Amino acid sequence: MDTKELLSAIEDELKRQVARLDEPRTKPFHDMLAYHMGWIGEGAGPAATGKRIRPTMLLLTVAACDGASAAKWLYAVPAAAAVELVHNFSLVHDDIQDNSEKRRGRTTTWKIVGAPMAINVGDALFVMSNQAMMDLKEHYPAEIVLQAAKVLHNTCLDLTRGQFLDMSYEKRNDLDVEDYWPMVAGKTAALLSTCCHIGAILGGADEGKQDAYRSFGHALGMAFQVQDDILGIWGDEALTGKSAASDLLEGKKSLPVLHGLVQKGKFAERWGKGPIQPDEVEEMANLLANEGAYEATYALSEQMTTLALNNLREADPQGEAGEALFELANKLLKREQ
Amino acid sequence: MDTKELLSAIEDELKRQVARLDEPRTKPFHDMLAYHMGWIGEGAGPAATGKRIRPTMLLLTVAACDGASAAKWLYAVPAAAAVELVHNFSLVHDDIQDNSEKRRGRTTTWKIVGAPMAINVGDALFVMSNQAMMDLKEHYPAEIVLQAAKVLHNTCLDLTRGQFLDMSYEKRNDLDVEDYWPMVAGKTAALLSTCCHIGAILGGADEGKQDAYRSFGHALGMAFQVQDDILGIWGDEALTGKSAASDLLEGKKSLPVLHGLVQKGKFAERWGKGPIQPDEVEEMANLLANEGAYEATYALSEQMTTLALNNLREADPQGEAGEALFELANKLLKREQ
Repeated sequence: MDTKELLSAIEDELKRQVARLDEPRTKPFHDMLAYHMGWIGEGAGPAATGKRIRPTMLLLTVAACDGASAAKWLYAVPAAAAVELVHNFSLVHDDIQDNSEKRRGRTTTWKIVGAPMAINVGDALFVMSNQAMMDLKEHYPAEIVLQAAKVLHNTCLDLTRGQFLDMSYEKRNDLDVEDYWPMVAGKTAALLSTCCHIGAILGGADEGKQDAYRSFGHALGMAFQVQDDILGIWGDEALTGKSAASDLLEGKKSLPVLHGLVQKGKFAERWGKGPIQPDEVEEMANLLANEGAYEATYALSEQMTTLALNNLREADPQGEAGEALFELANKLLKREQ
Repeated sequence: MDTKELLSAIEDELKRQVARLDEPRTKPFHDMLAYHMGWIGEGAGPAATGKRIRPTMLLLTVAACDGASAAKWLYAVPAAAAVELVHNFSLVHDDIQDNSEKRRGRTTTWKIVGAPMAINVGDALFVMSNQAMMDLKEHYPAEIVLQAAKVLHNTCLDLTRGQFLDMSYEKRNDLDVEDYWPMVAGKTAALLSTCCHIGAILGGADEGKQDAYRSFGHALGMAFQVQDDILGIWGDEALTGKSAASDLLEGKKSLPVLHGLVQKGKFAERWGKGPIQPDEVEEMANLLANEGAYEATYALSEQMTTLALNNLREADPQGEAGEALFELANKLLKREQ
């Protein structure tokens, strides 16, 4: 399966969707969206667009369904664009909410156009995801389009749930490890799960297979987030492109931190006294590891990874697309195949 | 037509949609939405919910279509909730963007929960509008649901277009009267037009009638906004609930102001020197009237009002619902019937 062909089709469709605003009066507005999407401005190019993992997973799932013809994924390209637009809408709003100045190495949209305008940029990307779903009508029966759209809408509400929990956790000191999962389910797993679910719907999979694909995407998202949390404290800066310990400096209540806090040991004691300073980061990361957080988080990451791969095996994706799906999963989960 | 029955069905459906977040973990999030919707907190009640004009127009249109059975509007209630949710999503984001501290006499949502959380409140209301549209599936064929959803999505993009123009106009000094219409088309007319259009689709109207209803809603929105602009400068505070001259103090580039600016007379000269102060408001309003802005704007308001009522006559709404639709239009346009 040539994923380059997929990626090029995804990018073309994204540009076609965003071009709805490419009219004389709204050209500057269009260009704000195009900047965020990585097409124009400072540092535009592949590093700025991100990897388009979500739409790729959706299209691979379509192509990996039983009896799918080789080019069947082409019909599903608007849905692929839709999930990527949802992802990017949430990034634009996230960056405002988190006061983040950088995204993929570039100045964030709100830092350039201001928060009020960036709220509107996010809103427009969200609207376009809805419009893209409607474009499925060209190749699918109305019933199928509605089914897929409904799955996406439900996931979007999960995104707002996850975002609410994430923001409210910042101020809470009574959190348990169990509070982590519903937050991550909304913030990361819901959309990946939906990519696989919609892919299975559009690929014509039966309900059993749809469930397997959906569960795969969910577990993949959970595993990915847990690994990201590990990297955010003990990780490799060159690999992740963000400062290894930035999560501790940002006071992010990631899974390892929640583990540390419930221990009520030295880590929790220092955490309770206020923001971690740069010169304390290494010591705090070591403290956290000594109190068992690394081991516990790593075990959960392994557990979720195994679950994801088992779910994918159960879905039994076919042909080259199936192989590509296993490859992508292993790559995301930093596994050698 | 008993609009009380309509209003009660609308309110119930809105609560049912928002209740998606009424779960233990997201209860505080649910309550933020419920506050904005006017159901709980400071000043909750009919004055806080707004008049639900958009959903009422949608349901009256359904009921006024040829051959519609008396209770046909009941099936369309989820669509009515959807347009009201879109309206409220845009209000929540508007208030952040405009830095507004009051809405319908109450503290705005973002002033209470903070801008980051309020962005998420708006996003959730928007998602729920999509979910509400999907609920039409219970009583309408999938093709019709898709048709109605597509109309709503296209209008949502118009809302972001209008919002972009509105925000970008604040900084521009080269505006002409002609720049006013595309902004108002997006900000006010698009959603009213869509209420009537979706109502006609769900009422089973043919394309000619759909067009007439859509045009009626559009002209109504334009006429309403022009009248609102007049009231914002020379209007009756008791009637509108906002300070008559607040538009001048806020530096809003409303239609009369654009008329004044292109005259390049005394009004434009003073406007160019910086924000209008409270003690200048009366003089500035008089200056503007003397330079012909009141007369010109009033003439346009009359023109749009006539157009709206002609379009409604062309749509030829039937029965009690049809009468109620004329009544509502006349009330919005401050006309004695």
